[in-house]
Amino acid sequence: MAGINRRELLASSAIAAAAAPSGWRAAIAAAPASGTQASGFYRYRVGGYEMTAINDGVWLRAIDDKFVSNAPYQDVQHALADSFQPRDKLPIPFTSLVVNTGSKLVLIDVGTGGQLTQLAPQSGTWDANFAAAGFDPKSVDTILISHFHQDHINGLKNKDGGLRFPNAEIRVPAPEWSFWMDDAQLRAAPESLRPVFLNARRIFADIAGDVHRFTPGDEVAPGITSIPAYGHTPGHVVFAITSGNASMLALSDTSHNPWLFVRHPEWQAIVDTDGTLAAETRKAMLDRAAADRMLVQGYHFPFPASGHITRTATGYDLVPVLWQPAP
Amino acid sequence: MAGINRRELLASSAIAAAAAPSGWRAAIAAAPASGTQASGFYRYRVGGYEMTAINDGVWLRAIDDKFVSNAPYQDVQHALADSFQPRDKLPIPFTSLVVNTGSKLVLIDVGTGGQLTQLAPQSGTWDANFAAAGFDPKSVDTILISHFHQDHINGLKNKDGGLRFPNAEIRVPAPEWSFWMDDAQLRAAPESLRPVFLNARRIFADIAGDVHRFTPGDEVAPGITSIPAYGHTPGHVVFAITSGNASMLALSDTSHNPWLFVRHPEWQAIVDTDGTLAAETRKAMLDRAAADRMLVQGYHFPFPASGHITRTATGYDLVPVLWQPAP
Repeated sequence: MAGINRRELLASSAIAAAAAPSGWRAAIAAAPASGTQASGFYRYRVGGYEMTAINDGVWLRAIDDKFVSNAPYQDVQHALADSFQPRDKLPIPFTSLVVNTGSKLVLIDVGTGGQLTQLAPQSGTWDANFAAAGFDPKSVDTILISHFHQDHINGLKNKDGGLRFPNAEIRVPAPEWSFWMDDAQLRAAPESLRPVFLNARRIFADIAGDVHRFTPGDEVAPGITSIPAYGHTPGHVVFAITSGNASMLALSDTSHNPWLFVRHPEWQAIVDTDGTLAAETRKAMLDRAAADRMLVQGYHFPFPASGHITRTATGYDLVPVLWQPAP
Repeated sequence: MAGINRRELLASSAIAAAAAPSGWRAAIAAAPASGTQASGFYRYRVGGYEMTAINDGVWLRAIDDKFVSNAPYQDVQHALADSFQPRDKLPIPFTSLVVNTGSKLVLIDVGTGGQLTQLAPQSGTWDANFAAAGFDPKSVDTILISHFHQDHINGLKNKDGGLRFPNAEIRVPAPEWSFWMDDAQLRAAPESLRPVFLNARRIFADIAGDVHRFTPGDEVAPGITSIPAYGHTPGHVVFAITSGNASMLALSDTSHNPWLFVRHPEWQAIVDTDGTLAAETRKAMLDRAAADRMLVQGYHFPFPASGHITRTATGYDLVPVLWQPAP
């Protein structure tokens, strides 16, 4: 009774196209497609803090059998197909987090600065979304950086090298600085990592004296505590945000795309500098998030990039938040 | 190494609140919370058609052990808790669909018209979202109605009784009209359904001559075919939308909240006029959507209300679409 299949639908569509439909009123006017999307920001509350997720678009990254180093490529392709994605393109959205504590405006990771559009033509929407959310770069008090990959730090600078957030104190993990800014590490690095070292110098070298380096574990802004989460990079941290009785975890890149790495926390991505340690850290973090039923945010989770973690028989799963019409 | 638990976080927050934080730069300026959410529309493409989901807010409906008639209340509460929702409040978002065929602007279901705000104070955002998406009510050519529940038809009229879409042809399922507009059915109806009968008269009685009644199975707009999906109401339909090689299903209320009724398609809700038939229809539709890997939209699915259906060991699951920065 209630069935119609894809083949029948396509056939009926062909018939409709062949025989000009009749009996419908003439259209009022041609209605051109608008092509514009709603603004990519999302507002929610954690206790007395107002959070705003700021999307910087998405990178549809072509992957091959090397992207996950310790799983059959067929399994990776199945995981993508199970998420209704192309089997050889990993969607990598970018989403920063603004924390308005009421007295301070804190920004966690700053997007691509529109500087990865050659790789990711659908990225670079950060400025428009930040403005649409009602923010001015001059009003940011504190910037917290989780790690030194390009998509997390490039937004610190304009393309001409000027500071995009002129009044903000920049706080970065000390071990991250020690690794990427060390010339001995650069000389010892494989060719594939050289661009990350060189980009870190481009962003930080001329402002080194103004960049605060924190010890992971420190409280880095009011109610925001850094937590060591090494493996994705040597000094990668996540941030616990607490206000009143509420708290959440900004997981940064503890898990990259959740359909691969939350569902299969043991999988190791080539984007991790230490895949084994990254997997251990990921499992520990996801396990804690699941046990405590904490709200989490992931920089590469599907926008608005927040949800909860549940345990499954073989790993974990992300339960996205229910979009709310008001924070 | 990588752990911190909720108790420790809350304790550290209390310490931070007690001891005024020092060593941080003074804030630039007080940053008042904005309290505003991004516009609730979402644009995507199906072949040559531009689709726009228009959100009308959400109703947090208090439920009790009668809401699902054939499952232990404890199981329903567990299903809500597994979705990180309160155990006794069902979130019911409302999301209409605009189909721009290039020559016609078609609207599928019209929202609450802001007339359910006593029940659902967070609803009534439809007008603002429709305008934000760039649409004018005068430009709608065709309105397709899935069934006669208030949240799907009330938006046809202003509160003063005037037509909100003055140039649109209204097309409704003939069996839906026959049931709800029949005075014999009204007299025989249980008290709980009387408001639905009376509301249908309020909306349709004075425009009866202008309302087109279609036979489920008919093509009702270019590329849009109605499909009988009875049970939720006696004449409830879904719509298959086809353009070129692409197609999708607007499931209307075939499944109410997916965390309950996609995951447990056999559960029967008190909002169904024939729960047994509704469950049969739901299983048939979800099974077909899963088999054909079709994009689906559900009027009460979490915004942006579209995704794909997968089979699980005990039912189905909704895989929400990945939010895209451009259609």
